[in-house]
Amino acid sequence: MVFILKPNATKQQIDSFIKSFEAQGFSTILSTGTEHTAICLIGNTASVDMDHVVATTDYIEYGFRITEQYKAVNRTVHPEDTVISVGGVVIGPDTFTVISGPCSVESEEQIVQVAKSVKASGAKLLRGGAFKPRTSPYSFQGMKEEGLRFLSIAKQETGLPLVSEIMNQTQAPLFEDIDIIQVGARNMQNFDLLKEVGMMGKPVLLKRGLANTLEEMLMSAEYIMSSGCHQVILCERGIRTFETMMRNTLDLSAVVILKQKSHLPIIVDPSHAAGIRSLVPPLSKAALAVGADGLMIETHNDPAKAKCDGAQSLDLEQFANLMAELKKRSGLENKII
Amino acid sequence: MVFILKPNATKQQIDSFIKSFEAQGFSTILSTGTEHTAICLIGNTASVDMDHVVATTDYIEYGFRITEQYKAVNRTVHPEDTVISVGGVVIGPDTFTVISGPCSVESEEQIVQVAKSVKASGAKLLRGGAFKPRTSPYSFQGMKEEGLRFLSIAKQETGLPLVSEIMNQTQAPLFEDIDIIQVGARNMQNFDLLKEVGMMGKPVLLKRGLANTLEEMLMSAEYIMSSGCHQVILCERGIRTFETMMRNTLDLSAVVILKQKSHLPIIVDPSHAAGIRSLVPPLSKAALAVGADGLMIETHNDPAKAKCDGAQSLDLEQFANLMAELKKRSGLENKII
Amino acid sequence: MVFILKPNATKQQIDSFIKSFEAQGFSTILSTGTEHTAICLIGNTASVDMDHVVATTDYIEYGFRITEQYKAVNRTVHPEDTVISVGGVVIGPDTFTVISGPCSVESEEQIVQVAKSVKASGAKLLRGGAFKPRTSPYSFQGMKEEGLRFLSIAKQETGLPLVSEIMNQTQAPLFEDIDIIQVGARNMQNFDLLKEVGMMGKPVLLKRGLANTLEEMLMSAEYIMSSGCHQVILCERGIRTFETMMRNTLDLSAVVILKQKSHLPIIVDPSHAAGIRSLVPPLSKAALAVGADGLMIETHNDPAKAKCDGAQSLDLEQFANLMAELKKRSGLENKII
Amino acid sequence: MVFILKPNATKQQIDSFIKSFEAQGFSTILSTGTEHTAICLIGNTASVDMDHVVATTDYIEYGFRITEQYKAVNRTVHPEDTVISVGGVVIGPDTFTVISGPCSVESEEQIVQVAKSVKASGAKLLRGGAFKPRTSPYSFQGMKEEGLRFLSIAKQETGLPLVSEIMNQTQAPLFEDIDIIQVGARNMQNFDLLKEVGMMGKPVLLKRGLANTLEEMLMSAEYIMSSGCHQVILCERGIRTFETMMRNTLDLSAVVILKQKSHLPIIVDPSHAAGIRSLVPPLSKAALAVGADGLMIETHNDPAKAKCDGAQSLDLEQFANLMAELKKRSGLENKII
Repeated sequence: MVFILKPNATKQQIDSFIKSFEAQGFSTILSTGTEHTAICLIGNTASVDMDHVVATTDYIEYGFRITEQYKAVNRTVHPEDTVISVGGVVIGPDTFTVISGPCSVESEEQIVQVAKSVKASGAKLLRGGAFKPRTSPYSFQGMKEEGLRFLSIAKQETGLPLVSEIMNQTQAPLFEDIDIIQVGARNMQNFDLLKEVGMMGKPVLLKRGLANTLEEMLMSAEYIMSSGCHQVILCERGIRTFETMMRNTLDLSAVVILKQKSHLPIIVDPSHAAGIRSLVPPLSKAALAVGADGLMIETHNDPAKAKCDGAQSLDLEQFANLMAELKKRSGLENKII
Repeated sequence: MVFILKPNATKQQIDSFIKSFEAQGFSTILSTGTEHTAICLIGNTASVDMDHVVATTDYIEYGFRITEQYKAVNRTVHPEDTVISVGGVVIGPDTFTVISGPCSVESEEQIVQVAKSVKASGAKLLRGGAFKPRTSPYSFQGMKEEGLRFLSIAKQETGLPLVSEIMNQTQAPLFEDIDIIQVGARNMQNFDLLKEVGMMGKPVLLKRGLANTLEEMLMSAEYIMSSGCHQVILCERGIRTFETMMRNTLDLSAVVILKQKSHLPIIVDPSHAAGIRSLVPPLSKAALAVGADGLMIETHNDPAKAKCDGAQSLDLEQFANLMAELKKRSGLENKII
Repeated sequence: MVFILKPNATKQQIDSFIKSFEAQGFSTILSTGTEHTAICLIGNTASVDMDHVVATTDYIEYGFRITEQYKAVNRTVHPEDTVISVGGVVIGPDTFTVISGPCSVESEEQIVQVAKSVKASGAKLLRGGAFKPRTSPYSFQGMKEEGLRFLSIAKQETGLPLVSEIMNQTQAPLFEDIDIIQVGARNMQNFDLLKEVGMMGKPVLLKRGLANTLEEMLMSAEYIMSSGCHQVILCERGIRTFETMMRNTLDLSAVVILKQKSHLPIIVDPSHAAGIRSLVPPLSKAALAVGADGLMIETHNDPAKAKCDGAQSLDLEQFANLMAELKKRSGLENKII
Repeated sequence: MVFILKPNATKQQIDSFIKSFEAQGFSTILSTGTEHTAICLIGNTASVDMDHVVATTDYIEYGFRITEQYKAVNRTVHPEDTVISVGGVVIGPDTFTVISGPCSVESEEQIVQVAKSVKASGAKLLRGGAFKPRTSPYSFQGMKEEGLRFLSIAKQETGLPLVSEIMNQTQAPLFEDIDIIQVGARNMQNFDLLKEVGMMGKPVLLKRGLANTLEEMLMSAEYIMSSGCHQVILCERGIRTFETMMRNTLDLSAVVILKQKSHLPIIVDPSHAAGIRSLVPPLSKAALAVGADGLMIETHNDPAKAKCDGAQSLDLEQFANLMAELKKRSGLENKII
């Protein structure tokens, strides 16, 4: 159940309203937009006489019931698009923000070189894996703390804010210099991790699980938001289907649906979806055309020698060419790139 | 095994070459492009000494082995893109051809009105179902012969060539005035129907089955081509996955893969993939951006009253608006719309 | 909407009741069980005042509304299990009927030898493909009419009734001596074929499509029943999933669900589901344990030389051993084997 | 690469052999069976001259290369079935071990009552969730530490060893009294958790992820084994497919495949697979018939009031009836129940 407040509602009124319902055993979500403030009750609201509440509370404009299990992420509760701002970079409805970098950090030289190059081509954030979730225990597992340190150096040298994946909650203290915390596809329903990253005080990039529905993805975003983080970026990265000619099936319809259901920004990761380099540029252009707010692209200075995911990584020149193509098209989608 | 002929090979030489291999029990596919002619042997070629054949046949340029089971549709055999031309309309690499019309023909007035409107908006072909494959025997099954007659009238009034679905081989004589024969998703592996439509002497539009791999789709196209039809259009229309928020998951990566593997044109049907009207325009733009050669869009004069698939049909104005958006973007993809 | 008739309702009353509703535009399904007769109205029954009909028609016991789209196959309409009897062989709740034979008929000697052997081991029906749906146009397509003739010879020599697959409706006249008409997985939604086989006057074995839901399968059975055939056998044969270690994923839960939703018998085809010989015996035992009414097993006299599906075929001895194992267990499931 | 040692190889020889390869940068896995000892090298073995090693090391019987990425779990390396023994209960090829209990621990009374009842019916271990992974942050998340305490009480009162799910590595100290650590489906690829539970010194029950291949499942088991735990139990619990009539599709073929590929025991969880109570008994019987080594069944004293998963839980009497049915059949499968 959602109550929309009148513009003149005071902080004191809001607090008292929330307290009265929390005393009855409800959780509440306070959603403050530029145009209106909403209070969402969580719990069994069947017994609440909504009309009575509206009629007897003069700072309430109106109320309505929502049936979706996701509340804080629901566009009904928060009709305006959420805009995320990190280190001067904006992710939201008016921009097409490209995050780029290698699958994994391999050395200081490598990450600094890639960072400088992708920045010159137009990337706004640098990605790089320090902790790598790998199917095999015998595969390279990432440079760990050292990798994070090299990322920091790349940030100092280029000014690009950082995106990197956390694999478990005990790593949180190591991510102080990371600007956006990534939750990987295989952890999308690692609920304890979701709660923890929601308390880190940083924007979170949540990747869709390989076999997770959009509703489950929104519920996982709800975990993060209900832990106190209001800056969640959703990321479509392909789902597992019966088709074997590409690694996963990129679901671009998901971008449209998620935009309808939620106010959160959504970006697309064509590199992991396809698993094949030659698919990345056309899928990137399609993501822009379908309405995504940005991309996450794997770029490597020498893909043939990459320690992981070389087959799907663009080289520096291919990335530059892709950015040039995207820049030609972003204006048509009313997006600043 | 494929043999590429020298440009000066004569028809007599080609015939004699083919005959000699057919006498040994091989089937052959003759593929004539603008730049070269290829002869593909089908059968167990393990015993063929390819180098000996090349060395001893002076009108053979070179030979190579292909391992894919699809031969005639294979880009390796026929490197140039196939261009299909029907009633003055072209479908191929330089065009973005939009097919539009209602899910099913409902009356002469309806189909003529829709035809005039979609033509004015820029559609190049008219679609309309006369025989309708429906999950339930109690659902409307189409107007059948009468529907085909109304389509002919719409063609006379607008000049738009026609696309309509055939459901079984006994219907072939009724499709004389239909310009492109559509094989529906549920019939993609109805092999007897594939053989039959391949002998109808008309271009065939082959839709991907709901759970068919791209390789199976290419094999079904191979059935049609091996029956004598060289004008096959592939159509991606969404696959069945675990996601339930839209009807099917549109697989735009398929467009890129199919372009790499085959020389056949490929179009996208976002209407059936999504099953929801609001997804059709963004997915259409994405299809253009990803490299498709056209679209098939369901458009109805009054979607709320449509006898089938109303929820996914655009109305005439929405279709006009979509075409206007596509026209703004087609030049960037080097496509004439 | 379903009306259950009183036991003393006369044929004349039933006819007049049906006629009065057909005059109002409804289709009807008459379902005659051993204990009661039901009349099911198909169409928009929202306007029918059911209570009024029951109150004013004295040979009606009671009425109820059903929401499932499938009517004739619905257990609600026909609570007793359907028992199918063909050539003295019974398929139903009290039996575990095993159909066996090669993927395709390859010669008179082969099919007669296999028939004699599987009969001796306990198979009750002989299967054999004469028309073969193959993914590739270059694969063996079956012996066609000659194959059907060899099946007839095998039937004469063993007395085993025959099951064989029809691929299109023009073949119906050739199937005169076939006792059960099989509709293959790829044709499960070939609706014109379903209508046609429903009119052949023989039991139909309907295989589940690779990506078809159970509801769609029941709707396809409804097509056959609404064409006049009341003897439909459902066959679970594995569905397409992301797993690649076996050909398809056998869905044994489907057996339980279909038994709950429908009165039709259901058998299991572990050979096509698995695609691997070693999985056939354990899956066969599991099918018996889960409540299936029988099996369809591919058996070949020399699997290594089979023209198709050799990898999944049991040899004659393996089939005999499997039957011995099943016989030990059938009593526990109250099934006569 | 695997080396099989001669029976008379001494511990000193084994240690020296291992050391010499670890000095060259390989990891090694030592697998000690009742009949032979194997040493498996992990790393790029392309440069190792296997024949030379065998010829020059007299306590080596022979060597061979394995291509699967999973080594320690591979039946090739360890041909005998692994038998897991915990608190006097055995899980392995000769037993059919049933684990039962409620989805979540709800009170001391509840868990003790259920434990006594399922023990009387024949369950050998008690399951109960204390930490519950839930799709929604607003759903009951389990009784946590208190739940574990109640489980301990139930263990004291019945002697049943305990199985409970761990959700993150920081919880490990709380699981001291739990006998088998469960890793849930959503954590199957939470690799950091896998490494951690592998070091807890207890058997681990690893559930298959909803969309994970069997190869990925074996790789996750490999993570646990390569962390030092040799007592891993695999659990098939249904996979996500397009079918919506049951929660997941139980993949019983997986049991057969996993038995072929690995020496680890495998059990089946029909409760979570089906999500519907009425499917649990037939699927349980099918799991026994297909060759599983046991079951995990949700049982509740009052399913209608269960805090989670009530719809799939058996009540105490239904569980007793199911056990009686299983006992009738276990002898036929050469299993002690």
